[in-house]
Formats: sequence, structure tokens, C-alpha cells
Amino acid sequence: MTDQTPRTPRSLFTGLSAFPLTPIHDEKIDEAEYVGLLERLVAAEVDSITALGSTGSYAYLSTDERARVTELTVANSGHTPVLVGVGALRTRDVLANVESAQAAGAQGLLLAPVSYQSLTEADVFELFRTVAAATDLPLVVYDNPGTTHFTFTTELYGRLAALDGIASIKIPGFDAAPDAWTQRVDEIRAAVGDHVSIGVSGDGFGAAGLNAGCDAWYTAIGGTLPTPMADITRAALAGETEKAALLSAALQPLWDLFTDFGGSLRVVAAVAEHLGLVRPHSLPLPLLGLDDDQKRRVAEVVDRLELS
Amino acid sequence: MTDQTPRTPRSLFTGLSAFPLTPIHDEKIDEAEYVGLLERLVAAEVDSITALGSTGSYAYLSTDERARVTELTVANSGHTPVLVGVGALRTRDVLANVESAQAAGAQGLLLAPVSYQSLTEADVFELFRTVAAATDLPLVVYDNPGTTHFTFTTELYGRLAALDGIASIKIPGFDAAPDAWTQRVDEIRAAVGDHVSIGVSGDGFGAAGLNAGCDAWYTAIGGTLPTPMADITRAALAGETEKAALLSAALQPLWDLFTDFGGSLRVVAAVAEHLGLVRPHSLPLPLLGLDDDQKRRVAEVVDRLELS
Repeated sequence: MTDQTPRTPRSLFTGLSAFPLTPIHDEKIDEAEYVGLLERLVAAEVDSITALGSTGSYAYLSTDERARVTELTVANSGHTPVLVGVGALRTRDVLANVESAQAAGAQGLLLAPVSYQSLTEADVFELFRTVAAATDLPLVVYDNPGTTHFTFTTELYGRLAALDGIASIKIPGFDAAPDAWTQRVDEIRAAVGDHVSIGVSGDGFGAAGLNAGCDAWYTAIGGTLPTPMADITRAALAGETEKAALLSAALQPLWDLFTDFGGSLRVVAAVAEHLGLVRPHSLPLPLLGLDDDQKRRVAEVVDRLELS
Repeated sequence: MTDQTPRTPRSLFTGLSAFPLTPIHDEKIDEAEYVGLLERLVAAEVDSITALGSTGSYAYLSTDERARVTELTVANSGHTPVLVGVGALRTRDVLANVESAQAAGAQGLLLAPVSYQSLTEADVFELFRTVAAATDLPLVVYDNPGTTHFTFTTELYGRLAALDGIASIKIPGFDAAPDAWTQRVDEIRAAVGDHVSIGVSGDGFGAAGLNAGCDAWYTAIGGTLPTPMADITRAALAGETEKAALLSAALQPLWDLFTDFGGSLRVVAAVAEHLGLVRPHSLPLPLLGLDDDQKRRVAEVVDRLELS
């Protein structure tokens, strides 16, 4: 807990934050396809759009490409607030991304401790301190151990939350009963204080996290299928926990794809490709995407659940 | 086993390959310090110099910085062959690094499957196939699971070795008895054939790997302390297995630092800083390097073992 005055209302970091893909063909960003994805998010009235998350392949893009995607996002998101992922292996490059995001008019930043050499807690704290000191934009702490290979402790969440400028923590989802979820969110809340929002990620765990008291759902699949994810979010935030859980349970075949195919990016790309929102082979190499059998199963699930 | 004719003599990938640090202060490469490190390697008559390995912080440098380091290395290595690390998160950027290494006159390339999203075996095979097809320079497959989070199977080694252009496999070290080492190297040899060199990495395991039949030692600490590592290598390759093991055992307090401080880069930087080869704080942020207590222990070991 800290007694500082928040410089950003927590509401910017509340509700459904949708993470669009950055479609890439022949190594170039397809701007028309990207704008098409943004238009769906605005139409679905998501609470915010997070450009250049893991789902937006931020780690694979140059500083210039990231500046361009940020500009496109701000220009095509209407009144929907825009958050931008600024993580990079090197602090110098993170700061360049912060500058371009700020110049483009982003309203918040998402920062993951991307690693090649494994990072120490001291490295990560200093990274966040440096970035928070370099910008007036509020920061989301992006805890994504599957890609960064850094494990945050609850105590580190607390130390970071005490920095001026930290506005939200994006926590990984996990498979547990509602009671265990509530206990975990309460534990984090006690560490970070009331001025910092807690957002759940890991798409299959959105309903569980929101029902347990998370303020936001940072969702990969919601960047491509915003409407069903917005329905779950609205039910949960209205206190209709059972409805949220039922809506999520109805999507279990979709969640199973994430588990079975090792993560969300390849599945989300395959969903977008199957729906014709992006052309085939929309990921940056070396990522080949799902194989043909896997894509057929994705198509079957999308059609059966009538996702669109 | 393949029956293709090797396009590069295995001898380029035999013996001691020393990996120099790329000293970075205030976010800029210190070219004078880097050239000073190269001069020590040439004087110690290492068999090759590998610029921009993990120890050379390749993953943190821009394409332009990497081109510059490559030029500096070729210009300051005399007759010592130069290998260059070309790995990057994105295949496009790998190919740009290949082009600049080739233009600068490198004699071989080192490629690790760097990841943010975890890579599949198909992704990795296609990456190596693409790069091998794009260059006439021989490639070292860089298996470094601690930083890439990709695990090679022996079968994948074999598939890669069958590609035209794959000249060597850099395998991770592991703690095992001599018999187990020999068995493992024999197993890899059976998979990759005789035309591909096998190089051990993981500094504490150099003698064990060479004594078990590895052709090369790809050494991080050898980029900063070439002489003792060259002594071990020469003994092992001359068949003086006991002498190599004794020389390595005498350095046990040094090897313990790598184990205790979680990897080699921070320790190697601290050694170079203690010896005055590079000024303090020589790593790219967010890497803070070892803390003061750890640096004191490094200094104590370097002094006690009279390393220089």
C-alpha cells in the first residue's frame, strides 16, 4: 500500500483491453488488415486497445515499425483509449519506443521485462524505475513469464506499484478454483494497494480473474474476437459472476486450443486467418504458425462455436 | 551421416574459439576496449575468434552496431579466423546480419534460435535452412537453451547437419562423468556425421567435452582469459586427457562462480573489469551486472588463481 495520489484514474485500466495482431506478410506490416482489426475493436466498444502486445508481435518489430503501428492505432481508434507495448531487450530501445508512443498520443504504456540473458530482480526494478521516470504516461507492468522467462514475486509487484507512474499489473492466468483465485487477487491487492489496477491475462482465465476481483482483462483473443470477450467482461464487472463463468465455459473448446497448441499467438493468428480478417501466413518469420492439421481444428472450433 | 562433400574444412571449427565481450559504456560500444580484448586473443594464438556471441551481447545490439563490431573484429584479428554471431528474433534481421558479416570478411557464422514466442522444431529447421541457403559461409548451430529457451533434440542436430553449409554444432556443457560425456558425444557424432565439428560450451565443461571427443571449445571466459583456456585445449587435443582435466580442476573456484552467479556473462564482465581490461559497468542495460559482494568474490578468485 502507498498513500501517493494516483496520476491516472484507474478506469483507464479497467474492463476489456483488446490486443490486436500486427499482420505481417512477406516481412511487411499489412496496414489495411491492421486497420480492419482496429475497426472491429472500436465497433465492439472495448474499453481500451493495447497495440504491440505479445499478440501484436512487438518483440519482432523495429523501432520504426513500432512507431508506425502506434500512429496507425491512435489514428484509427476513435475515442477508445490506446495503450502501447514498449518492451525491448535493451533499455535504450525501450526508451525510444516510449518516446514514439508518447509522440503519437498513446494514453498508456505496457512494459514487459524482455530477456535474453536472464534478468535479476534488481535489473527489472531498475528498468521500470528508469522508464517510469522518463515519461508522464502511466505504465502497465506486463508479467508474462512464458515469453520473458522472468518470474515476478508479489513483493516485487509491491515495490513497482510504489513507483510513481505504475498504473496496472497484468498478471498471468492460472488454473485454479474460484476461492484460490480470490485469495491470489486479494494477496496482490494487499501488496500493490488500491491505486493500481490488476488485470488478468491468459485468455481462458478471463472470467475467473474478473470474478475474483481483477479490474481488467488484457486479452489476446479479444483483439480478434472482441464481442464474446466484451460480453464476459461486462457480466463479470456487473457482478454477474455466474453468467460470466457460463459464457466463458461455453468457449472451452477455444480455450483448449491455447492449451493444446502451446500459447495464444499462433491460435489467434489462425482464427483471424480462418475468418478472413487477415490473409494466411500473417506472423513474422521464424514463426511459421500452426500446421495444417492444427489449423483445421481451429477452423472447426471457430465454426462450431459460431465465433465471428 | 551424410555423404556430401564438406565445403569447409572442419579445422576452421576445431580448437579454441574465444568469445570476446563487447564492452558498452553509457550505451555506446567502447571500440578501444574491444580492440584491446582482440589483441589479447591474437597474442594467445587462439584458433578462432567468435565475435558477437552471447558473451558479446549480440542480442542487445542494433544491426548497425553488429556490422561495426564485425568490421572491427576482422580488422584486428590478424590471421586468426573470425566467426560472427548472426542470431536475432526475426529471420529478416538474421539475414541482414549475415549480409554484413559476409561483407566484412567473416569466415563463419554462429546462429542461435533466439526466441520470444517459443519456437517449434519446424520453425527452427526452416530458420537454419533459410540462412544456410542465403550464404556461402559455413554455419555453427548455436545450442544455448539457457538464453534461447529452445531445446534441440539429437535428431534435429542430425537433420540440420544434413543441410549444406552446416559446419559445426555448439552443444551445451553438462555435469557428468567422463564415460557419460563420451557416450553423449558419440551419440551426437552418430547423428551428425564426421563432416560436422562438435564444439562444447559451458566453460567449466571444456576439458570434459574435449576429452570426450569434441573438436572445439566455444568459450566465453576464453575471450577474456585466453591463455589458461588455450593450455587446456592444447592438452586435450594432444590426447593428454589427464593434464587437461588437472588444468581445468585447478580453475574450479572460477567455474564455481558461473554456477553460483547464474551464468557466464556477468562473471566474465566482472573478471574483465577487475583486470582493468574494460572499465566498470560494461554491460548493456537492463543488465546491471554482478552486485558489489559478488564482484568482490570474483576479484578474490582472479587474484588467488593469478589469472591474467
